[in-house]
Amino acid sequence: MIKKFLADEWRIIEEGFNPETNRFSESIFSLGNEHMGLRGFFEEQYSGDSLHGIYLAGVYYPDKTRVGWWKIGYPEFFAKVINSTNWIGINIEINDQTVDLAKISFKDFRRELNMKEGCLTRSFTMINDNNHETAFKFTRFVSMADPHLALIKVEVTPINHHVKLRFEPYLNGDVVNEDANYGEKFWEAITRESDSKVTSLTMATKKTDFLVTTAMSIELRSNGQIIPVTKTPNSREKYVSYTVDLEVEPGTTVELIKYIAVGTSRDYSRDELYEAIMTKLEEAVKLGDHHLYQQHCEVWEQKWAESDIIIKGDISAQQGIRYNIFQLNQTYSGKDPRLNIGPKGFTGEKYGGSTYWDTEAFCFPFYLYTNEEVARNLLLYRYYHLERAKENAQKLGCNGALYPMVTMDGQECHNEWEITFEEIHRNAAIAYAIYNYTNYTGNKDYLYNEGLEVLVEISRYWASRVTYHPKKDQYLILGVTGPNEYENNVNNNWYTNFMAAWTLEYTLDSLAELKVMDGRQYQNLKNITRFEEIELIHWQNIYSKMYLPTSEELQIFIQNDGYLDKELLNVEDLDPNELPLNKHWSWDRILRSCFIKQADVIQGIYFFPRHFDLETQRRNFDFYEPKTVHESSLSPSIHSIVASRIGYHEKAYELYLRTARLDLDNYNDDTDDGIHLTSMAGTWSVIVQGFAGVSIDDGQLTFRPYLPEQWEEYSFKITFRGRRLKITVAKDLMLVEQLSGTPLTFYVFDKEYNSTVDNPVNLKLNTTSKVKL
Amino acid sequence: MIKKFLADEWRIIEEGFNPETNRFSESIFSLGNEHMGLRGFFEEQYSGDSLHGIYLAGVYYPDKTRVGWWKIGYPEFFAKVINSTNWIGINIEINDQTVDLAKISFKDFRRELNMKEGCLTRSFTMINDNNHETAFKFTRFVSMADPHLALIKVEVTPINHHVKLRFEPYLNGDVVNEDANYGEKFWEAITRESDSKVTSLTMATKKTDFLVTTAMSIELRSNGQIIPVTKTPNSREKYVSYTVDLEVEPGTTVELIKYIAVGTSRDYSRDELYEAIMTKLEEAVKLGDHHLYQQHCEVWEQKWAESDIIIKGDISAQQGIRYNIFQLNQTYSGKDPRLNIGPKGFTGEKYGGSTYWDTEAFCFPFYLYTNEEVARNLLLYRYYHLERAKENAQKLGCNGALYPMVTMDGQECHNEWEITFEEIHRNAAIAYAIYNYTNYTGNKDYLYNEGLEVLVEISRYWASRVTYHPKKDQYLILGVTGPNEYENNVNNNWYTNFMAAWTLEYTLDSLAELKVMDGRQYQNLKNITRFEEIELIHWQNIYSKMYLPTSEELQIFIQNDGYLDKELLNVEDLDPNELPLNKHWSWDRILRSCFIKQADVIQGIYFFPRHFDLETQRRNFDFYEPKTVHESSLSPSIHSIVASRIGYHEKAYELYLRTARLDLDNYNDDTDDGIHLTSMAGTWSVIVQGFAGVSIDDGQLTFRPYLPEQWEEYSFKITFRGRRLKITVAKDLMLVEQLSGTPLTFYVFDKEYNSTVDNPVNLKLNTTSKVKL
Repeated sequence: MIKKFLADEWRIIEEGFNPETNRFSESIFSLGNEHMGLRGFFEEQYSGDSLHGIYLAGVYYPDKTRVGWWKIGYPEFFAKVINSTNWIGINIEINDQTVDLAKISFKDFRRELNMKEGCLTRSFTMINDNNHETAFKFTRFVSMADPHLALIKVEVTPINHHVKLRFEPYLNGDVVNEDANYGEKFWEAITRESDSKVTSLTMATKKTDFLVTTAMSIELRSNGQIIPVTKTPNSREKYVSYTVDLEVEPGTTVELIKYIAVGTSRDYSRDELYEAIMTKLEEAVKLGDHHLYQQHCEVWEQKWAESDIIIKGDISAQQGIRYNIFQLNQTYSGKDPRLNIGPKGFTGEKYGGSTYWDTEAFCFPFYLYTNEEVARNLLLYRYYHLERAKENAQKLGCNGALYPMVTMDGQECHNEWEITFEEIHRNAAIAYAIYNYTNYTGNKDYLYNEGLEVLVEISRYWASRVTYHPKKDQYLILGVTGPNEYENNVNNNWYTNFMAAWTLEYTLDSLAELKVMDGRQYQNLKNITRFEEIELIHWQNIYSKMYLPTSEELQIFIQNDGYLDKELLNVEDLDPNELPLNKHWSWDRILRSCFIKQADVIQGIYFFPRHFDLETQRRNFDFYEPKTVHESSLSPSIHSIVASRIGYHEKAYELYLRTARLDLDNYNDDTDDGIHLTSMAGTWSVIVQGFAGVSIDDGQLTFRPYLPEQWEEYSFKITFRGRRLKITVAKDLMLVEQLSGTPLTFYVFDKEYNSTVDNPVNLKLNTTSKVKL
Repeated sequence: MIKKFLADEWRIIEEGFNPETNRFSESIFSLGNEHMGLRGFFEEQYSGDSLHGIYLAGVYYPDKTRVGWWKIGYPEFFAKVINSTNWIGINIEINDQTVDLAKISFKDFRRELNMKEGCLTRSFTMINDNNHETAFKFTRFVSMADPHLALIKVEVTPINHHVKLRFEPYLNGDVVNEDANYGEKFWEAITRESDSKVTSLTMATKKTDFLVTTAMSIELRSNGQIIPVTKTPNSREKYVSYTVDLEVEPGTTVELIKYIAVGTSRDYSRDELYEAIMTKLEEAVKLGDHHLYQQHCEVWEQKWAESDIIIKGDISAQQGIRYNIFQLNQTYSGKDPRLNIGPKGFTGEKYGGSTYWDTEAFCFPFYLYTNEEVARNLLLYRYYHLERAKENAQKLGCNGALYPMVTMDGQECHNEWEITFEEIHRNAAIAYAIYNYTNYTGNKDYLYNEGLEVLVEISRYWASRVTYHPKKDQYLILGVTGPNEYENNVNNNWYTNFMAAWTLEYTLDSLAELKVMDGRQYQNLKNITRFEEIELIHWQNIYSKMYLPTSEELQIFIQNDGYLDKELLNVEDLDPNELPLNKHWSWDRILRSCFIKQADVIQGIYFFPRHFDLETQRRNFDFYEPKTVHESSLSPSIHSIVASRIGYHEKAYELYLRTARLDLDNYNDDTDDGIHLTSMAGTWSVIVQGFAGVSIDDGQLTFRPYLPEQWEEYSFKITFRGRRLKITVAKDLMLVEQLSGTPLTFYVFDKEYNSTVDNPVNLKLNTTSKVKL
């Protein structure tokens, strides 16, 4: 854990430069606009440790699988998010000396991310031998208004000397991925052009053949006036640049503006791509940096108006949640249904692939509660991959559909048998998201038209994956890895068995409902998926006879067979120097220990707030939480929400802190590789589903709010069935303001309230009352 | 399965050339002499598919580990047996056409391995455009008399035309391993020399810095007379050769003799190596090919006299067992205690490393029963690695010693968590070998002086690896992989638990015995290993409370927790097209099935013939054998021996066939990669321990022989406590001839017999009597 940044409601501020934690800062200072993004690495040359990363959404490379020992069924490749043409680069020389923070003397280093406006600035003062000082300021943004545009500004001010200044803004396509399995280069040069007017580079990925055109245009200014300069074009394989030489007087500021346009063959036809990007660039230059920035800020203003959470009385918590919302908004907005939410967004290479079960299990509520359309796109993404999921199931000797653990295009691309083949619970999360969407929106269109097709195939998978035990007259699920990846190849993971049974039940119920509601569509579905009534009876049988491991003695669900045979310790029994376990213990030791990586039984309990009585929830929480090391970033938020539910407010807040500032404080010492985007959505849920206790009970919007002791007030917005609501929770009161839509009936605890756009509901909260168990 | 070779008692004959199965033949036709060996690939150029492999015992390379996902505790490298300087190469041109069987026309291709003399010949007739024919014959042997020498002879006879013949015998150090993890080259050139007298190449391995000098000398002969020719030396990086041009008349045979000497810095000091090898080469040339061959044959004669098994009435079985004995003898003789028995010997790259538990569990009896000294060297090999085994245990958070799964120098070099970290039963096999040696030889010197040190550290490991379950008041062993690698990360593998408990018991008994027999050595051992009496009490406690999963209902041992929850099918229920499972099923499917890769419970039963009553053995065999797919080459022999014991003679013979001709008939379709050397020792055991039923019961040599119905007679030799015995079993009688040593008392079934060198015992067998269960 590092406390590196200054506390501020809207800004992330780093003062002073520490080369050893530079990668961490680079991750934190990432920018993006759903279409593209980059880490916070430097424009100018830097010979110290740095992870260069500029990424384009949906542009990936199938890197040849690397495993020690091949297993049948492993995919041939791992689809990777890849580092693409470096367009921020600007080499700078001061009096023939290259500006490189690993080599020069400097002071007053400062980086600042303005989250309100999505803008990163960096400044420092270079000190030369004779105490000659030169001030630098870098500003960058990636336009939220136009996905193809970005802008960089460099301001150079010689403070007390005359300076010979050279800029070399460039585009460099000769980039690599640090995590390339065999050191392969993923890009090949297609065309480049470089004259004093136009500089562009077109590259293509090998194998996947994505075409990417990057173009730049520069302006030099001083005192707001364009300076006429000679731009000498340079060019070599995969590289184009300008050289610009200037003489600058003391006290004068020279600005270099670098306009960037980037497009891919995902955005335009291959024939039109170049022209389109050139037009984009021209328009941007014509518009000018100020207007471009203005447009960009307007989008951010809108985003914040929709999704901000305001916390009063706790700057650190406010900064944490804003940072998470900022990253979520700039990485994925759901505009492009071919995209999904990668665990690192545009902030690193690690984990490759784009889509994990994180999307459905952790990110989904954020989008569902704020923008139903995006949630629907996320469902459609899986619907479009159904055929591939069926192929995947078949490859593993099963029927129906098994969605991949990690995917870019619907094909599995992970390669660890205990995960790839055995972490099959992911299938249930995809079914659950359909339920979640339908339950929250009250809209059954998706369920009836697409969702049930997915549900039938997932159910079919479960039916082919269970093992019937004649003597016990029960169905078992053998050889799985549950959400707790600190146990592998276990039998009867409670979560998996429970979710499989639930999927079968939900599918059967939905089919029965559809049959009544829309016989034609029912028949249509039957034709498409070719299910027989006898198959449904079999599912019913499995559902009702699914084995769910339970301890009569402890009155808890057992995580999986054999769990209670372990030495039952708690995390507090461990030597703190051995944490995190995954950096200190060999894998077998972790596996045979009772320590839990992430919510497993608790994950199931989280999904169904009303299914288990609070006493059951509490007993399971009391048993499992002390054994959970939360070494997955996805874990604390789920435990926090359940803690809120059962009245463990201090615990809930402790877990909130762990998730809210996970990256800002580098809690798991791994933010160097990139941020934990999908867990950021979980943090949002901690406040909305946890502290405010939002749930849909019997189709009714219900709140069970409380205010964490450390706070004075918090507020957030959600949309619910066509209405936009602003919820504020303070010490003793709650305010529900309806911003749009028809009148709404909602519940706070068990009491009914009615709001309209004109009539906000202001109610008194009894914060001393405890949850009844 | 391929039936490729002609049946012959002493020879392996291939007629006709099939390029598609060439790698398989190359494996089969491998030659070696413990110091070095090579696959049966061609001397002349061959552009078709081939796996070039020339290996030097103990010369390895630490190839950087390749895994998909790193786990803490994985070794940095995998020690590999590496392909070294190609010394058989001879390029040949006939009238300027390169002889390359992938490109020329030819007939009468024949390869023949003479196992009696350890000699490989190959012949074919090349056909040119005008039906001009040229006959070729290649002969090679790797001297069993001098480990540094090998010889190749090529005979060329133009049959019906005049030939312009060019030979280019060479040494080529520019070789690679096909299985190099990152395509790295392991060798660097040190020196080369090439003049008309001397041609040599000295190479060194990177990282491990083994120095290897290879030298060649050639002679040209016709009609037994040396032909004076001009040898033009050629040389380039890592390569030296001669070119020799000749004109040959029709009907004349020209012979090229290539003398080879090879030595390594393992054999000589680095300073002396070159001189030593040159001297070897000179002496070989002086001696001449005929005498070299004679000396070589003499060693083979001696080997066969010691270790041959003669089977009458079944040529196929005879050929199979001889092939196995041939490979065992030419690969490992136990002369060098730094060496061990690699699973592929000198016949392929696969599996790298040299030592697996195969040595103690499968190969040990062959050496123990034929050459006690070699068996002792095998024990010492592990004794010398004790410190590294202690480091290994510590790395995994345990005490005592955990021997590596795969090793070259005592360090673990495997990298699959479910094997490396969890297949800990290997430790018990090492303990068992100490017991086996002590029990068979009756000699306690090794046990008291070295063995107990190993046993104490292994016991200490088990004591730190068990989990005490307070409620059950039992000790469990969680998270292991048993011998059946088709289940991973299971709890309470019966074999592992049983063997761990047995190790503790044996260690305690041996310590108690030593304390009485030799108090000083006991104290010495206590000082070295620092055990306390309280530790022994704890071991006693673990031993007596070890949980051994057992089914009361089925009256069998349960392979591991959860095994009986599986769908209990038999192999005969499977679609034969899905066999072998490991080439058709994804890993999770294999894991959750009941199908067993190799002897697991049966392995434990095999180790202790008198510990379990025959009824118990039979019940377990009846349950497990039908579920065993024997997809490890090590499996059928163990099941066969137990089948013999319980009177299942037909089953025992069926399993014998599977193991005896496993490679000759390419039973598992994987002999391309190399032969299964360690399973070959198991075949020998099938006859000696299975059919002849040799065991040591209460210190007495005991036979329980029978003759497989398909045979007329079999005989073999063993040594027992200073006596050499020849055992012959025929239909109704058994002959025990004592070839040396003091008078012997032995048992056949329950009856006592006495033999001396002058008085063989000839007894009547009642073959119709069945084993009493």
